[in-house]
Amino acid sequence: MDKCYEIFQGTAFTSHTSKEITILKDCLFCVNENGIIEKIVVPENEEYQLFLDKYQGRDNFHRLADGQYFLPGFVDLHVHAPQWAQSGTALDLPLHDWLNTYTFPLEAKYADLDFAATVYEDLVQTLLANGTTTALYFATVHKEASLLLAEICAKKGQRGLVGKVVMDDPEQNPDYYRDINTETALADTEEFILAVQELAKQVKQGVYPVVTPRFIPSCTTEALKGLGELAAKYDTHIQSHCSESDWEHEYVQNRFHKHDAFALHDFGLLGDKSVMAHCNFLDDDDAELFAKTGTAIGHCPLSNAYFANSVIPIARFRDKGIDIGLGTDISAGATPSLYDNAKQSVVSSRMLEDGVNNALPAEERGVPNSRITINEAFYFATAGGGESLSLPIGRIQENYTWDVQIIDTNVPSAKLPIFDPNEDLYDIFQKIMYNTRPENIREVWVQGEKVHSR
Amino acid sequence: MDKCYEIFQGTAFTSHTSKEITILKDCLFCVNENGIIEKIVVPENEEYQLFLDKYQGRDNFHRLADGQYFLPGFVDLHVHAPQWAQSGTALDLPLHDWLNTYTFPLEAKYADLDFAATVYEDLVQTLLANGTTTALYFATVHKEASLLLAEICAKKGQRGLVGKVVMDDPEQNPDYYRDINTETALADTEEFILAVQELAKQVKQGVYPVVTPRFIPSCTTEALKGLGELAAKYDTHIQSHCSESDWEHEYVQNRFHKHDAFALHDFGLLGDKSVMAHCNFLDDDDAELFAKTGTAIGHCPLSNAYFANSVIPIARFRDKGIDIGLGTDISAGATPSLYDNAKQSVVSSRMLEDGVNNALPAEERGVPNSRITINEAFYFATAGGGESLSLPIGRIQENYTWDVQIIDTNVPSAKLPIFDPNEDLYDIFQKIMYNTRPENIREVWVQGEKVHSR
Ligand SMILES: [Zn+2]
Ligand SMILES: [Zn+2]
Repeated sequence: MDKCYEIFQGTAFTSHTSKEITILKDCLFCVNENGIIEKIVVPENEEYQLFLDKYQGRDNFHRLADGQYFLPGFVDLHVHAPQWAQSGTALDLPLHDWLNTYTFPLEAKYADLDFAATVYEDLVQTLLANGTTTALYFATVHKEASLLLAEICAKKGQRGLVGKVVMDDPEQNPDYYRDINTETALADTEEFILAVQELAKQVKQGVYPVVTPRFIPSCTTEALKGLGELAAKYDTHIQSHCSESDWEHEYVQNRFHKHDAFALHDFGLLGDKSVMAHCNFLDDDDAELFAKTGTAIGHCPLSNAYFANSVIPIARFRDKGIDIGLGTDISAGATPSLYDNAKQSVVSSRMLEDGVNNALPAEERGVPNSRITINEAFYFATAGGGESLSLPIGRIQENYTWDVQIIDTNVPSAKLPIFDPNEDLYDIFQKIMYNTRPENIREVWVQGEKVHSR
Repeated sequence: MDKCYEIFQGTAFTSHTSKEITILKDCLFCVNENGIIEKIVVPENEEYQLFLDKYQGRDNFHRLADGQYFLPGFVDLHVHAPQWAQSGTALDLPLHDWLNTYTFPLEAKYADLDFAATVYEDLVQTLLANGTTTALYFATVHKEASLLLAEICAKKGQRGLVGKVVMDDPEQNPDYYRDINTETALADTEEFILAVQELAKQVKQGVYPVVTPRFIPSCTTEALKGLGELAAKYDTHIQSHCSESDWEHEYVQNRFHKHDAFALHDFGLLGDKSVMAHCNFLDDDDAELFAKTGTAIGHCPLSNAYFANSVIPIARFRDKGIDIGLGTDISAGATPSLYDNAKQSVVSSRMLEDGVNNALPAEERGVPNSRITINEAFYFATAGGGESLSLPIGRIQENYTWDVQIIDTNVPSAKLPIFDPNEDLYDIFQKIMYNTRPENIREVWVQGEKVHSR
């Protein structure tokens, strides 16, 4: 019988395929000292009683109360950490004003490490409280503040993947907020990578440096080339924005005479550890390049409603075999919750399928076969996020990390609408996905360690 | 100087016009014994100090703490109360299956008054906890359970407008769940109206009976005619669904050779106290009829994504002068929160404006000038809802009822992302609209009485 560092008893929901949920009813979850799920024992297994006899009553034995369930922790593939301080404001402005009047002046303030610490501590804590156990962050251009964000993730127990943002083109960025020049941008990135890799040696759940050109329009060609080389040299993750809006898509077309996907590929910026936010305007060739290179889409449905001029055909891209996860895109998406984004990804997909303009006949209004289900949205928020990052996360399954949220459907101040004591477990799963508030997220564990409770 | 039954000091946000917010900074709000705002005193007024001298320190003097703000209570124009028990489930099914496999069997269970009491108590409490001070409810066909819902609203202090649902056509409704016949449907409705009007005599905040044909397809022509007559006889509110989906729109066209709006009008079902849910497929003539008769639209943006096959052109209908409010449409809209629906109404309007299909050129993709702002969504959730019901609610303004929610932006477990002690109050308003969770709603008052606190 295996030795458990922590052992849990209860019912868990996890993805079987992208469309199907596995319900692990009343199982035992044995987690080893590295925070990996060593073994899952179903009640029908003869070992079940042996495990109970050995561990019940010990400090490391955790039995869920009635009405509590395990879900995998969520993986947020796109967070602009500095923008947390403006989440919810100015969304009625056009993108250009939103960036220049609000966002860039705010991001510039992270030269101040005290300010950065205040916001980043609050954000990481808030994301954990919303069930997000892994997050892929854009920080700012500032090397020190970016490293501070990685340190805060390390300290608070979140699995953080952090990028120092590169935006070095003086033509495209304001003087008060950009890399001083290309050389500095690349040198700072390299120092940042080394510092985070050094930090990671002490961090159980992992922290990772991410090569992060803001998006093609922000960067000189030399910077894009240099960043691809750094990513290869240090085998890092890579993130950027790709084919987000009409404007951005056309800018790249005019500059490189190709789509973002192929331009990014030329610079060595696509690959198994690459996550590109949005991707609304990928065409079939772009999508096949994503699938072939293992590049993932960070789908940000709430943000897209404001700034992407369209709904991404996510079902079509999934069918092409592209890795897909969800992102909040704080603060263009004004919520720290992937529950909100999972629900919106379903809603947006229905709007794409049915169309929006009531003046058109039904058969000309939408794009058939575009809808996704809440099961698929859950998959994107969990297992799909893990596959996007090429990490063993996002599933409650042997050899995956013990990253979970414990949902209590019975919290008196936030009781879920469950009135039948024998309610079907799949109905409960759906109610959890649609009705969970941070109040219902009683504990959050990352890599076998409890990092949040209330 | 006026005599105040309750007096409050703090900063409030309320609608000035549908597009502009009024910020009442550090005002005094004097509420009379009928629960009406008798007087609002700004700090610059010489009476301000007189009021403070007289009331400060008394039990009926309430000063907001730092970081707390008053918002008007929300007005939910469309709630299927019985469906609360399935909120979040089965939304991936087509409407027909959703109704026949889930919804109708569930609604039939409200013949059991114990079950009804359990769910309705929980729902009314939950809506209050989400800031909804007035709700317009569909109950079920059952007269007794419908009256019970009105009694629960009365007891818990919510302003409830409740309809016993009429669905009497044996061709269109399942045998296990419909009115036995037209005569019974009308007699039960009349008894229900009288019982609620009797109950209302004892209820400070008001409860109201609502004439409620489920929608045209559910009802015989005799029932529709009889319901119009009952509404006129007793001067009641009226609610139904109107032009929701392609199917429903076409059904009415085939049966009456006109659109829902004109068919409803023929039966005397449009008017100042009428609220029609959805209305996605109103054409210009329908819209003008709504404006002329004072009929309101109950806009349910989350529900629409699942069942309405389109996004309602809400900006266009607003410009035609139609009264508009928001509805959750529990459970087709799987949230008890009008915050969620206010946000979605903005998001949906952006999707209508920009369009959804990335394969189309930008200029053919959407419908220009369709977007609304968060100010307008807030207006719909508050003042617009009040105008829709022709009640003096939804504004923090003299001669309106004291229906408010007190938002605490500093709750430790749900702190809003406000880091600047001198943050602009309009930015705070936006952050409240985008980030408020039930945890932030510390108190809810209806008609001058505290009905919820945490
Ligand atoms: Zn972004
Ligand atoms: Zn409805």
